[in-house]
Amino acid sequence: MTPETLRALLAGVVDGTVAVDEAVRRLTHAPYQDLGFAKVDTHRVLVQGMAEVVFGEGKRPEEIAGIARALLEGGHDVLVTRADPEAFAAVQQIAADARYQERGRVISVVRTTPARLGRAALVCAGTSDLPVVEECAAACAAWGIEVARFVDVGVAGLHRLLAVREAIDANDVVIVVAGMEGALASVVAGLTKRPVIAVPTSVGYGANLGGLTALFAMLGSCASGVVVVNVDNGFGAAAAARRLLAR
Amino acid sequence: MTPETLRALLAGVVDGTVAVDEAVRRLTHAPYQDLGFAKVDTHRVLVQGMAEVVFGEGKRPEEIAGIARALLEGGHDVLVTRADPEAFAAVQQIAADARYQERGRVISVVRTTPARLGRAALVCAGTSDLPVVEECAAACAAWGIEVARFVDVGVAGLHRLLAVREAIDANDVVIVVAGMEGALASVVAGLTKRPVIAVPTSVGYGANLGGLTALFAMLGSCASGVVVVNVDNGFGAAAAARRLLAR
Amino acid sequence: MTPETLRALLAGVVDGTVAVDEAVRRLTHAPYQDLGFAKVDTHRVLVQGMAEVVFGEGKRPEEIAGIARALLEGGHDVLVTRADPEAFAAVQQIAADARYQERGRVISVVRTTPARLGRAALVCAGTSDLPVVEECAAACAAWGIEVARFVDVGVAGLHRLLAVREAIDANDVVIVVAGMEGALASVVAGLTKRPVIAVPTSVGYGANLGGLTALFAMLGSCASGVVVVNVDNGFGAAAAARRLLAR
Amino acid sequence: MTPETLRALLAGVVDGTVAVDEAVRRLTHAPYQDLGFAKVDTHRVLVQGMAEVVFGEGKRPEEIAGIARALLEGGHDVLVTRADPEAFAAVQQIAADARYQERGRVISVVRTTPARLGRAALVCAGTSDLPVVEECAAACAAWGIEVARFVDVGVAGLHRLLAVREAIDANDVVIVVAGMEGALASVVAGLTKRPVIAVPTSVGYGANLGGLTALFAMLGSCASGVVVVNVDNGFGAAAAARRLLAR
Amino acid sequence: MTPETLRALLAGVVDGTVAVDEAVRRLTHAPYQDLGFAKVDTHRVLVQGMAEVVFGEGKRPEEIAGIARALLEGGHDVLVTRADPEAFAAVQQIAADARYQERGRVISVVRTTPARLGRAALVCAGTSDLPVVEECAAACAAWGIEVARFVDVGVAGLHRLLAVREAIDANDVVIVVAGMEGALASVVAGLTKRPVIAVPTSVGYGANLGGLTALFAMLGSCASGVVVVNVDNGFGAAAAARRLLAR
Amino acid sequence: MTPETLRALLAGVVDGTVAVDEAVRRLTHAPYQDLGFAKVDTHRVLVQGMAEVVFGEGKRPEEIAGIARALLEGGHDVLVTRADPEAFAAVQQIAADARYQERGRVISVVRTTPARLGRAALVCAGTSDLPVVEECAAACAAWGIEVARFVDVGVAGLHRLLAVREAIDANDVVIVVAGMEGALASVVAGLTKRPVIAVPTSVGYGANLGGLTALFAMLGSCASGVVVVNVDNGFGAAAAARRLLAR
Amino acid sequence: MTPETLRALLAGVVDGTVAVDEAVRRLTHAPYQDLGFAKVDTHRVLVQGMAEVVFGEGKRPEEIAGIARALLEGGHDVLVTRADPEAFAAVQQIAADARYQERGRVISVVRTTPARLGRAALVCAGTSDLPVVEECAAACAAWGIEVARFVDVGVAGLHRLLAVREAIDANDVVIVVAGMEGALASVVAGLTKRPVIAVPTSVGYGANLGGLTALFAMLGSCASGVVVVNVDNGFGAAAAARRLLAR
Amino acid sequence: MTPETLRALLAGVVDGTVAVDEAVRRLTHAPYQDLGFAKVDTHRVLVQGMAEVVFGEGKRPEEIAGIARALLEGGHDVLVTRADPEAFAAVQQIAADARYQERGRVISVVRTTPARLGRAALVCAGTSDLPVVEECAAACAAWGIEVARFVDVGVAGLHRLLAVREAIDANDVVIVVAGMEGALASVVAGLTKRPVIAVPTSVGYGANLGGLTALFAMLGSCASGVVVVNVDNGFGAAAAARRLLAR
Repeated sequence: MTPETLRALLAGVVDGTVAVDEAVRRLTHAPYQDLGFAKVDTHRVLVQGMAEVVFGEGKRPEEIAGIARALLEGGHDVLVTRADPEAFAAVQQIAADARYQERGRVISVVRTTPARLGRAALVCAGTSDLPVVEECAAACAAWGIEVARFVDVGVAGLHRLLAVREAIDANDVVIVVAGMEGALASVVAGLTKRPVIAVPTSVGYGANLGGLTALFAMLGSCASGVVVVNVDNGFGAAAAARRLLAR
Repeated sequence: MTPETLRALLAGVVDGTVAVDEAVRRLTHAPYQDLGFAKVDTHRVLVQGMAEVVFGEGKRPEEIAGIARALLEGGHDVLVTRADPEAFAAVQQIAADARYQERGRVISVVRTTPARLGRAALVCAGTSDLPVVEECAAACAAWGIEVARFVDVGVAGLHRLLAVREAIDANDVVIVVAGMEGALASVVAGLTKRPVIAVPTSVGYGANLGGLTALFAMLGSCASGVVVVNVDNGFGAAAAARRLLAR
Repeated sequence: MTPETLRALLAGVVDGTVAVDEAVRRLTHAPYQDLGFAKVDTHRVLVQGMAEVVFGEGKRPEEIAGIARALLEGGHDVLVTRADPEAFAAVQQIAADARYQERGRVISVVRTTPARLGRAALVCAGTSDLPVVEECAAACAAWGIEVARFVDVGVAGLHRLLAVREAIDANDVVIVVAGMEGALASVVAGLTKRPVIAVPTSVGYGANLGGLTALFAMLGSCASGVVVVNVDNGFGAAAAARRLLAR
Repeated sequence: MTPETLRALLAGVVDGTVAVDEAVRRLTHAPYQDLGFAKVDTHRVLVQGMAEVVFGEGKRPEEIAGIARALLEGGHDVLVTRADPEAFAAVQQIAADARYQERGRVISVVRTTPARLGRAALVCAGTSDLPVVEECAAACAAWGIEVARFVDVGVAGLHRLLAVREAIDANDVVIVVAGMEGALASVVAGLTKRPVIAVPTSVGYGANLGGLTALFAMLGSCASGVVVVNVDNGFGAAAAARRLLAR
Repeated sequence: MTPETLRALLAGVVDGTVAVDEAVRRLTHAPYQDLGFAKVDTHRVLVQGMAEVVFGEGKRPEEIAGIARALLEGGHDVLVTRADPEAFAAVQQIAADARYQERGRVISVVRTTPARLGRAALVCAGTSDLPVVEECAAACAAWGIEVARFVDVGVAGLHRLLAVREAIDANDVVIVVAGMEGALASVVAGLTKRPVIAVPTSVGYGANLGGLTALFAMLGSCASGVVVVNVDNGFGAAAAARRLLAR
Repeated sequence: MTPETLRALLAGVVDGTVAVDEAVRRLTHAPYQDLGFAKVDTHRVLVQGMAEVVFGEGKRPEEIAGIARALLEGGHDVLVTRADPEAFAAVQQIAADARYQERGRVISVVRTTPARLGRAALVCAGTSDLPVVEECAAACAAWGIEVARFVDVGVAGLHRLLAVREAIDANDVVIVVAGMEGALASVVAGLTKRPVIAVPTSVGYGANLGGLTALFAMLGSCASGVVVVNVDNGFGAAAAARRLLAR
Repeated sequence: MTPETLRALLAGVVDGTVAVDEAVRRLTHAPYQDLGFAKVDTHRVLVQGMAEVVFGEGKRPEEIAGIARALLEGGHDVLVTRADPEAFAAVQQIAADARYQERGRVISVVRTTPARLGRAALVCAGTSDLPVVEECAAACAAWGIEVARFVDVGVAGLHRLLAVREAIDANDVVIVVAGMEGALASVVAGLTKRPVIAVPTSVGYGANLGGLTALFAMLGSCASGVVVVNVDNGFGAAAAARRLLAR
Repeated sequence: MTPETLRALLAGVVDGTVAVDEAVRRLTHAPYQDLGFAKVDTHRVLVQGMAEVVFGEGKRPEEIAGIARALLEGGHDVLVTRADPEAFAAVQQIAADARYQERGRVISVVRTTPARLGRAALVCAGTSDLPVVEECAAACAAWGIEVARFVDVGVAGLHRLLAVREAIDANDVVIVVAGMEGALASVVAGLTKRPVIAVPTSVGYGANLGGLTALFAMLGSCASGVVVVNVDNGFGAAAAARRLLAR
């Protein structure tokens, strides 16, 4: 509610074309109108540019299904991360077209056709990082971000990475998923001018500290301009990509 | 050197328009041409989109001045972070037009006119975070990113932030600089759809762990799509902004 | 036993109205009277204002039931935290009216009618924090603290919180339960003048460090006067609320 | 601005007793009226119950003096924590009646007469904790909280603590300041039914981890209902006391 | 083998009363005689004052039984810590008189009659610490240390501890077992002049860090002369007690 | 591709003995020829001196079997670390001669006859460290490194170690595997001039921090020239031994 | 005050041989008599067996001198740890016979003749650990514990330690002071049956974590019965030795 | 002293060619002969292959000079690490030919001519790591290891590293010195089959944790067979190189 719309409303009150009670209601709710609205996600789309995504951990299957039903009834797609098969079964009960990306543990019910936002390179070192890659890819798919995977390109065999360097650079944004020492982020960032979003994973031997080693390494990257999301947070990288591609 | 330029070069060898020695020189250097070149930054500009920035910590004044001279002779601007006044004095000896952003500890010698890439909101809670803000702003300035500062908007007085919410949203990218508990990043990200780059600072009481508390809080943001750079790394945030604005 | 009561007792000895043996017994036990007493909880009620609460973790079902029986025989209510269903089954054997708050993992046998101490707002961001919220609520209920829950108010959707701001402020104390980055505590404290007790939870992605991230963030809150209890310690927040409401 | 005041304002518009422009101004600012207001502290007093306190670390003397002048001009008292003597000299330039608690490193300019809120026991183990105690006491003094100090009562000599047990219990709130292993908080909480606010300090030998050892110990107190503020945060404890005494 | 016994041996060689081969054998083994001896424990008894104790974790049942058989055949008692029921079943196969302290997870086969070394007070706060207490007690029992348990004496109810203060002081050594914040060690040490061995346990809520909180708190005890063993290391405390009682 | 081979190639183009398309292909691939090669392991053998080893954790049985088949078809031996019995069953399906070192969790299919590289002493303190020892030994065996095990030589019984000191010194490299406090590495390094590779293990009581205690202790060894690999990384120690023995 | 002395006192009241006021005074003070006494140290000597020692860090020179004067006036010796030269100068003002152990940073004023308690071996690896050794030695000297230093015996040169093994074993208690990896404690404990008190020091390269590496290593010692005090806490080791030698 | 030499000695005793006293002396000292020898370094050379190196931190200038004199008098070279200019001045007093590598903080007095052991590549990313590089180089120089420096080869500009790949591979051992995220170790190890010793440095922004980030990253390297020494421990890397080159 800008000063202009406010002035118009008040003019309506003076004119008598807007009742005082109606003006009270509007002014009480505006800019709270959207805020107090029960359809929470409508608002989040407006403000943050994407609907609410359900974080599945710690929620019961029936709760997840309930939230999913509310979202669908509000005309929104559903995305649930960290979801186990029980949650998927519950969501299937209320949405037969629900799909489950098992490795990424993502439930999705996509009924809208998202605008195409651009292309993301999803770069990782190996098979063990795939759960995070797939969580990221599932979110990208739901949001209209086309994904190109580069899975076999760890820095221990640098030639494999150098061979796909131009193919990576051809994307709008580069998401690097890496565990162990996380060096892949630095090396990739040194090879491209694209935005680089690094996702540390909890994959690794010994003192990987549940992914903190890769996390700190990526934060300390000697290549400038690498940004980082939380450990194993493939979804977060997708959301960050969405923010920057939506410009 | 793409396959096409390579084919053209070889055709020139066959034609005799390119001498064998000249072709050897070019092929030896391509893609190494830039690599083996003493003017290192030329190459980095091509690959990563920005010239090398000098990290001043642990380097002696005369070394920093030497690197600066090499960069200037190569036609590049100079940016030195974490620079103390002694380093600035040394750089002034070789570049009378050098400037020193004292709070941000950045030396800059800008002789080119960078293209304007866009606008960044620089949001922080208070005076204590200013050294990081200014490091970021100095890098932005050198790279053609226009900066709008929002300095007095910590979440403890939410009204101050809400009052500038639209002004923040009017930028191309939002950089949130916050110490203590780092909550500002989550709140700002909940209020804008712009890309949000969070910079934790080492400012704070007690168990702020030299900035790790804010760092972890920002990584764990309940608002989706926040990306994070290292503690106190204002320069890194600017470099990330440059990557995404250069698209 | 103050000097006055002591003087009176001694006067009774001189008077012969108090036998020497009786005086020995009283003086031996005072101030140890309560201390050496087998009914431990009677004493704790007097000194700390609340009966002993049983910490269920690491105790066997039959031990928990045994302690519960002793408390009940002493005329006390029973509260067991971190209790699993096996412990509940054992307590049911000795108290058919025992109840189990499953999500909060609290067993309670409430046979007294506690005085009403006041009202506590229980504010949290979402479903995943509910186990901690319910542990807190169960203890509040047993102690005469009325609870108002505000569950859907994370800072990523600030409007939801702003809409209930006054309703929160209408309570005597505000308990904020939050995982991830714990920013909710700072924002809520910035919106109310009430005492704010923050409970970090172990809910979250990646580098939440089992709740330490939220804990440190809450301790470092830029809003003044936030106090913190241990990770997931909903019971502790209730006990702190009791201390301050009992004034 | 409650619905009632809003209804009255609109009625004034209808009546013509309030001009449309004036109504626009008020509605634009309400509930933002206070928020956008330059006198920031007025608002914070209303919302949080206490004026802004200046955190001195990382701010320059002239900046601190500037903020102090603004506060004084707004009719507020001034409290600056973590202030060094240089900052004090600068504040003295603009307020000759400024005082400096050197050990607590607090500058205060108190020109109002605060209402008496109650009494706080300030309990600590020894001389080394005094800087934190004095920071706390200075804030209490400025806010109308009467302080009783109990300085020589570490748990290694339990008799000293037991001797003042009743004197401690006679206060409205108990603030325990302790470094090393922080056991004092547990023991004191076991001896009183008052609210107990624990302040860990960075005082100690070896593995005290800059105060984290005391912090974690206090959070893990076996006595129920202890709440904790950040390491060395004497000011924070005072602010928490203010919140609960202001009820 | 002291110089004197060596001189005697050599004299025997000269005399012919000791054959060269025999002397070679003795000298090869001396000082290696005990060292290289297959009956490892004989040597450890001589050097360290106690036979080898088997650390059960990570060893297979049949391996534990094998080591036990070797010890028994060598005339030694058997003590296995961190033993699960499967290990006990295996040891029972080779020693029908083996006993299992289930809570302390200690297998013992005691066939010798140890000399009585003295008395140890085993002080702990509650039921949850009992596994560590019982591990300690089982080792004490096997080594001739008489144990007096004081189980219900946490500092949150100080009176309980004060009531048994003299009974604790009547022992030769005091072992304090405590989790949570570990304050019990400081308080007990302040009440006795006996040697105090503190054992932190991993019992506790939230930020107890698997026992590190209690560990650091005990190391930082404000009471002088507290010594500490590793987290949950009841056996280690017993072994330390043995060292000092054996003087 | 050196300047000489390049000059020759170009001469061939001029001569017409090399077609332009062929030259394009060679130049595009050189020095990428090996890099882009599909048989990844061939390349790694050339560059790093050993074929790729499969890290089994986080990979599915069928994926491990698929990689194993690809390696075998390429003429390479197969080594899978951190493999569970399910993975072994899958590999057996495609290679009946596969073997499983159960304690070390290593699958191997060795069809080549490796050159003998030398001898490694594998020194550890006891049974609990055997899984790491056996992982190391399995890799050594596959690579032609002969292993001598010294299993019963912890520093608590120094005589046992001194007795085998010369036997240890007789090897080309010494690998010390130790958990708990990791002191074995320092002591062994003080007794030999051989290269010493230390492997910390996660074995131990209490504050062993999952092996970090041994790791840091080994890094801080007061004996010069000890090098360290990651916690429990027996394979890594073998790979390091291979690098140095292959000289 | 036992029941018997109490009965006698009361009998005196009945008899009139003890005035009521006198009985009130005695009963009020007993067992508090010593507790409320201004000469704090008298009490600590009685309860803990040693007078209070002043921890100098964070105390001002004049405060330290004031405490010293009070102790001396009470007939006690003075011991100040972590004292800088300024503190010593202040103490000299009030006690000309004060002495300063500069390396150990201990001020002592010893005017009594302590009973000889026994002998302690003080074992360390080298010169860098001497400040801790000397702090320990100064406290031992003040308390009648004779000290034998073994300074050049790090495990990297095991022969040096083995050469003095019997000389170490000839003491009543062994105090091992070691930084770096702290292995010396394990090795010494494996060579003696004496009580072993380990003192980790903050001496060392890189990841010694301010002494935590040695601390954790000592706690995790594979030799049974090692007890540990805090990092650099030479005084604490002396106090522990005093407790056990005083039996 | 092998069984054979022992048998010969005893035969001499029987023969009378060796006096009993002489035999006692020899047997007492063997294998202690070297151990008890005052010229400590002679022994260390024999056992560990290199003379003792003096760790300068925490030692006083006159102590360092004293140790240096003893070494020189024993015919050994002197190497002091972590030495400040004051220590150098003291050593110069007793050895005019002493040299000081200022950046590496190493004092050396080299009077012998060491055998040439081989060549080490010293690879680092930039100027800030030079203190560690130079400490390593100074030790290498003193021990006959020829050094080739590769200083400008961080992974952010991969071309620079690829250009010197073969030159690096031409050495006997590769020492990689890197701070920040430490990725250089992984990349280099992927490019060479040589032994790779990684030295993490404390150089870096923000969450580099004093070098722990690089340390953990190097330990977690995805390239097989990387070994690691402590943070900033250039000397340690040299000593490790010496061990492996001396084979």
